[in-house]
Amino acid sequence: MTVVFDHCRAERIGLPESVFSEGKPYEALEKLACEYASPDARPVLFTRLAPETYERFPPEVAKGLDYHPLSRTAFNRVCPGRSGGRVAVVSAGTSDGPTAWEAARTLAYLGVEHTLYEDSGVAGLWRLTSRLEEINAHQAVIVVAGMDAALASVLGGLTPLPVIAVPTPVGYGVAQGGETALHSMLASCAPGVAVMNIGNGYGAACAAARIMRLL
Amino acid sequence: MTVVFDHCRAERIGLPESVFSEGKPYEALEKLACEYASPDARPVLFTRLAPETYERFPPEVAKGLDYHPLSRTAFNRVCPGRSGGRVAVVSAGTSDGPTAWEAARTLAYLGVEHTLYEDSGVAGLWRLTSRLEEINAHQAVIVVAGMDAALASVLGGLTPLPVIAVPTPVGYGVAQGGETALHSMLASCAPGVAVMNIGNGYGAACAAARIMRLL
Amino acid sequence: MTVVFDHCRAERIGLPESVFSEGKPYEALEKLACEYASPDARPVLFTRLAPETYERFPPEVAKGLDYHPLSRTAFNRVCPGRSGGRVAVVSAGTSDGPTAWEAARTLAYLGVEHTLYEDSGVAGLWRLTSRLEEINAHQAVIVVAGMDAALASVLGGLTPLPVIAVPTPVGYGVAQGGETALHSMLASCAPGVAVMNIGNGYGAACAAARIMRLL
Amino acid sequence: MTVVFDHCRAERIGLPESVFSEGKPYEALEKLACEYASPDARPVLFTRLAPETYERFPPEVAKGLDYHPLSRTAFNRVCPGRSGGRVAVVSAGTSDGPTAWEAARTLAYLGVEHTLYEDSGVAGLWRLTSRLEEINAHQAVIVVAGMDAALASVLGGLTPLPVIAVPTPVGYGVAQGGETALHSMLASCAPGVAVMNIGNGYGAACAAARIMRLL
Amino acid sequence: MTVVFDHCRAERIGLPESVFSEGKPYEALEKLACEYASPDARPVLFTRLAPETYERFPPEVAKGLDYHPLSRTAFNRVCPGRSGGRVAVVSAGTSDGPTAWEAARTLAYLGVEHTLYEDSGVAGLWRLTSRLEEINAHQAVIVVAGMDAALASVLGGLTPLPVIAVPTPVGYGVAQGGETALHSMLASCAPGVAVMNIGNGYGAACAAARIMRLL
Amino acid sequence: MTVVFDHCRAERIGLPESVFSEGKPYEALEKLACEYASPDARPVLFTRLAPETYERFPPEVAKGLDYHPLSRTAFNRVCPGRSGGRVAVVSAGTSDGPTAWEAARTLAYLGVEHTLYEDSGVAGLWRLTSRLEEINAHQAVIVVAGMDAALASVLGGLTPLPVIAVPTPVGYGVAQGGETALHSMLASCAPGVAVMNIGNGYGAACAAARIMRLL
Amino acid sequence: MTVVFDHCRAERIGLPESVFSEGKPYEALEKLACEYASPDARPVLFTRLAPETYERFPPEVAKGLDYHPLSRTAFNRVCPGRSGGRVAVVSAGTSDGPTAWEAARTLAYLGVEHTLYEDSGVAGLWRLTSRLEEINAHQAVIVVAGMDAALASVLGGLTPLPVIAVPTPVGYGVAQGGETALHSMLASCAPGVAVMNIGNGYGAACAAARIMRLL
Amino acid sequence: MTVVFDHCRAERIGLPESVFSEGKPYEALEKLACEYASPDARPVLFTRLAPETYERFPPEVAKGLDYHPLSRTAFNRVCPGRSGGRVAVVSAGTSDGPTAWEAARTLAYLGVEHTLYEDSGVAGLWRLTSRLEEINAHQAVIVVAGMDAALASVLGGLTPLPVIAVPTPVGYGVAQGGETALHSMLASCAPGVAVMNIGNGYGAACAAARIMRLL
Repeated sequence: MTVVFDHCRAERIGLPESVFSEGKPYEALEKLACEYASPDARPVLFTRLAPETYERFPPEVAKGLDYHPLSRTAFNRVCPGRSGGRVAVVSAGTSDGPTAWEAARTLAYLGVEHTLYEDSGVAGLWRLTSRLEEINAHQAVIVVAGMDAALASVLGGLTPLPVIAVPTPVGYGVAQGGETALHSMLASCAPGVAVMNIGNGYGAACAAARIMRLL
Repeated sequence: MTVVFDHCRAERIGLPESVFSEGKPYEALEKLACEYASPDARPVLFTRLAPETYERFPPEVAKGLDYHPLSRTAFNRVCPGRSGGRVAVVSAGTSDGPTAWEAARTLAYLGVEHTLYEDSGVAGLWRLTSRLEEINAHQAVIVVAGMDAALASVLGGLTPLPVIAVPTPVGYGVAQGGETALHSMLASCAPGVAVMNIGNGYGAACAAARIMRLL
Repeated sequence: MTVVFDHCRAERIGLPESVFSEGKPYEALEKLACEYASPDARPVLFTRLAPETYERFPPEVAKGLDYHPLSRTAFNRVCPGRSGGRVAVVSAGTSDGPTAWEAARTLAYLGVEHTLYEDSGVAGLWRLTSRLEEINAHQAVIVVAGMDAALASVLGGLTPLPVIAVPTPVGYGVAQGGETALHSMLASCAPGVAVMNIGNGYGAACAAARIMRLL
Repeated sequence: MTVVFDHCRAERIGLPESVFSEGKPYEALEKLACEYASPDARPVLFTRLAPETYERFPPEVAKGLDYHPLSRTAFNRVCPGRSGGRVAVVSAGTSDGPTAWEAARTLAYLGVEHTLYEDSGVAGLWRLTSRLEEINAHQAVIVVAGMDAALASVLGGLTPLPVIAVPTPVGYGVAQGGETALHSMLASCAPGVAVMNIGNGYGAACAAARIMRLL
Repeated sequence: MTVVFDHCRAERIGLPESVFSEGKPYEALEKLACEYASPDARPVLFTRLAPETYERFPPEVAKGLDYHPLSRTAFNRVCPGRSGGRVAVVSAGTSDGPTAWEAARTLAYLGVEHTLYEDSGVAGLWRLTSRLEEINAHQAVIVVAGMDAALASVLGGLTPLPVIAVPTPVGYGVAQGGETALHSMLASCAPGVAVMNIGNGYGAACAAARIMRLL
Repeated sequence: MTVVFDHCRAERIGLPESVFSEGKPYEALEKLACEYASPDARPVLFTRLAPETYERFPPEVAKGLDYHPLSRTAFNRVCPGRSGGRVAVVSAGTSDGPTAWEAARTLAYLGVEHTLYEDSGVAGLWRLTSRLEEINAHQAVIVVAGMDAALASVLGGLTPLPVIAVPTPVGYGVAQGGETALHSMLASCAPGVAVMNIGNGYGAACAAARIMRLL
Repeated sequence: MTVVFDHCRAERIGLPESVFSEGKPYEALEKLACEYASPDARPVLFTRLAPETYERFPPEVAKGLDYHPLSRTAFNRVCPGRSGGRVAVVSAGTSDGPTAWEAARTLAYLGVEHTLYEDSGVAGLWRLTSRLEEINAHQAVIVVAGMDAALASVLGGLTPLPVIAVPTPVGYGVAQGGETALHSMLASCAPGVAVMNIGNGYGAACAAARIMRLL
Repeated sequence: MTVVFDHCRAERIGLPESVFSEGKPYEALEKLACEYASPDARPVLFTRLAPETYERFPPEVAKGLDYHPLSRTAFNRVCPGRSGGRVAVVSAGTSDGPTAWEAARTLAYLGVEHTLYEDSGVAGLWRLTSRLEEINAHQAVIVVAGMDAALASVLGGLTPLPVIAVPTPVGYGVAQGGETALHSMLASCAPGVAVMNIGNGYGAACAAARIMRLL
């Protein structure tokens, strides 16, 4: 099994390589990690890389990767800085951490400046409004929320920035798996809220980077 | 076809008779309307009574009914007043009118005092917050919203009153039919928000009346 | 990762703090448990706290919490008593225990008097009717049922009290996960039955407490 | 287009011919109706035959058919009587009429004795219990209900007879189309309740006839 | 937690007690098993009793139960024989074994004579047709199938007996969980096929026993 | 609005042009029909062309099209004959006509020989088995069925030919819209049955033509 | 019924007023149209305004609105021009016209430069690739597609621009209503594709305008 | 439990025996494996045979089977070669390996020549187009893809060969389980793409073999 890598992607769409690790056999992942561990390797980002997998890598390979367990991301180096704007990542609660941090870490890998605002859920509205001015000083907002995802609508109605909403699988009963959050964001009563797949913090960061590249 | 009416319902559960008109043949509805048109008839409420049906009733029967087209409700008389509290009905937008008014009209029929606050959707948050103090002066809130139904979560996090949330079928795409609003309300991040079936303004009013009966 | 707690919630909506533990990393839960273990801490309720997690807490922290494994709830102290009414918690079967007890334990934490009636499913109708008078002596009813959830409709047609229905994920095949129970309760033929998310005993107790606060 | 009729069905499975009319072009239906209008034709039952279609039939053909608009059924003659038992058809409300009557009319066509008990929904439980003894004097029960379909569970727990449950599409919101009733019946807490497709009164009667054939 | 058993069920509906074991805590199950282990105990059937649970029972209790691992059923004694007819249990494939055997074992417990015909799926149609005459010598058929469940339609078109169809969760992709088999059986083109919940072999046996009781 | 036609499709994939008419504005359809009415026009097939639309075409344009109302197809000329094999189109019932005929008409347009076998549903199995030898004398089979679609599995287990299965939206309740038939075909217990979208007789014919092209 | 308009929205989020017309009573729409017909009125956009409704407006009001039937949009004036970039609207087929044109018309209303590329579906890939360079000369792309929506993935893999994908309800069978297109876009294998609700061309334009505002 | 094998299948439909191992008890699998291990046994293919199961087989039995862990397939011998055409198996990404290899291994077992092209997803379109000519030199194509499955549409629009599409459960959020890929393939805008159940590489190979048998 030889992997045919899309090596010219960065030139074509401005987003460097990444590896979605979930579901790939360990051997394939280790082989990729080794290749990118060499000093002259191009940058690469591993997403959905389980801690157990990372810990199984040979020590010298693991050492060459910057790994972050909550977001399950790893990269060998940061891409050359982009001069564009800054992105605010706003999440509803602590449980949305894995997705919010996947977005933040991908932005870091892509060389995009960003700030993370956690625990901003609308059940305690003051937590959002007290930080609104600071958020609006960025050039785009990534909103991360599960359950009813009301945060996307409220923030979408309070900011003129591009809003990229990411539903998370946080919740139980009808909220389990994130479909309620996804649908709530898609049906947002605030105009112009764009939505990513459930838990796709990586994609939200890429969408933001496509915007930042214009600035 | 003779209808076996649950005539002792008012005594048993404190809620007088009502007729869900949708799907019933015209002949059955006209017969019922005639019976309740007599001066000494007990009170009755018709819900989901289409304007076409009402207009087809014999004039003297139609005249004996207080009909309201937007809510599609009709009643022959108002039930004896209840001394209990007052209910606020808060809706997100003009399109939620049929459900919001079904709740308001049912409260009127049941003799429960109430106020209706329309156009309070969270995309323009100031419309809700500017009326919050007034809403909190009631003893229960019925929240009516479609699409993402974020209003239920936001209001649920701002009021100590019992909150009865009613999703509406307003919206398109994933919001069509009201399931997104229903799930969003059930998954509300605000604690203690109780939910009715989609478009069930009548049931929300009954739930509120069960509470008012305690006061 | 610092948690921004909604510390003014009790003042705003009358419901003190609680922590939804499922999906939160152990470190965050232990940190919270330690903070609330101090003698002068405000009251706090942990819901969905797995026995494995509780047992991993440092002994002195665990000792400071009243933990109940079936309901997976823990609290450090009971909130000051409310003078209002009493709540009946009626469940269909033994398997509904986790949700029924989550409701009962939350009521205990909130200082609301209550009685628990288990094994009242309608397949053996006499078990419900023989206790009806006693149930009706309360001021609100929380109905907990899985599978076909017929109990909500039957009890809703027999009591004038506010009825808060909680579906449970009990069952298999089409009943698995609780959606059938949820939909059955929402479509109840008894008027004024309000519904919570699947398994949300905590929310049902909060909804009841919002009502009891009026008395 | 020539129809290949399964003419030996009665001999093979004991159930004579029937024509599901919905979706068939008018020409095919008229041709079939004409064939079966001759004095020596075998018995045939048309189900889901819209009034508009029946009224379009040539007068002499229409006259030869016993048509019943509410159930949308027509037959040219009744099958030779079966000596077996009697079937009770119990329905929850007036709106379930089309399905309940389709069952009753099919039983009539098949020569099976039966009684119809309408308006027996559990929201007013006394309507069912007061007729229970009479129902139990039959040899099988067909239960017809929409919305939450709680009637199937309650009756299934009160009768030793074979119970055939038919959900109806009566209801709105989550009940619309009858899936909630279907799932509720399948998940019934009463043991041994067998279920038909939504609105399939015809099939319920066939299932009952298969049983009566044994007696 | 004391269980309120529906002890008069056998008298009321002719079906003796049974315990759905899945989801019940071990302590409750052991307590019940002990009570029914005494020589003068009434008959009881445990369904969905995992081998791990059974093996954890005290030896003298386990010895007093007739346990069958594939069907996950156990009973302490067989109910007094019924003089009625015999039931054929026909299953599509080896993988449907757990459900087919749950039906067979429940029939054994209820004292109903029966024969089990496995591996009769329609992909190799001769396996069914070669045994048809033998099957038709019974008084009712329980059909057990997963995946496309075509067996129910084919057999329903070949037998005049009452047909009780049980979908199983066998399959993958769209068949996973058994919903395809369930819907296929409900939509069967053969008239009078009655359907149980997915995997409900117990219920199918109860439905058959309700019929056998008439003979 | 100018349509950018994929004019080189026939050369690229061997299937000439076709127009999916549903949802296109009348003006666009008339314009296309006029263009293809000229004597030297390339062949074109219109699918899902409603009778009302066809009848609205200018007479000289309508006259130039071979229109078939049941299948809602029209073509200006037949494509040059293919020397390959013959295709059997087998359908379960009269109601599946629109889809079965869409397949047959598309085959005619593509110049593929074929035979249509209607009314072959498995509820009367003899109708299929008596024609099996004749069917097997073709080189591919298109199976068209709604409801439980058991025909696909039964025929798939009786023929060595390539089997292309097309579900139809025929049925009510759980069968409504054709999803049950679709899932049943996808989960077929017969190996190697390939499936098209619901009602896609056109696509089935194209799939068969791709095969015939090899012969 | 008085509408509480969110009049300060333009100042708050940079997007001027708009009216979602579907489901609003005619009287409310006419009243709004009249208000905005005055020469000094602020700009307003009506979306989902049916031709029947527009034609019912008083002539002088209708005349004051720029109405476009395919997109069902109307506006009284164009907002002051934005100096930012240009947006490419790329659609898969003619049937996606209503949504593609709703996006284009909203961009026109918002004063954003744009180009519309229709009929770019991937079944004839050359139609997209031949226009790629021209598309990439814009600053953002709105991709509009129904059915399998493969266009979003293919274009997302070929352009470095921000990509806003809008599913349409075009299709039948599993594609009906647009859910397949929606899910396909959300699951796109191209990184950073952001998605709107089904048919939400208006929202896509707003999302693009939020981006253009940065340039 | 004795298995009634469909031993005449190869003669009837041209496809030799196979065993779907998932969900079958170990004892049944071992017994079958032993029977087929004898030198004169007919060929047999085990699909979905977990590595743990294979490793538990007695060494001499395991040795007699050609086992392939990624595809979870095993066979005792290859069927006699077919003279027909060659099949291309084209997959979108490394994660689709289990399904793609199940197809390839089944083709090997059936004696059908084939080539496997992995990593051909459309996000990097050049990977597909650069191999198109080579692919088109086969006689049929099996397309294997998860997530948005856009590969099926793109390839279907570029090749005249029969196309058999197999969705895989690769993906997360809305793509989880493979339903999005399935629906996307069924709704493909390329004409004549036939689809298998999610993950059914075995069935795709059988469908291809049915075609190759004609050549």
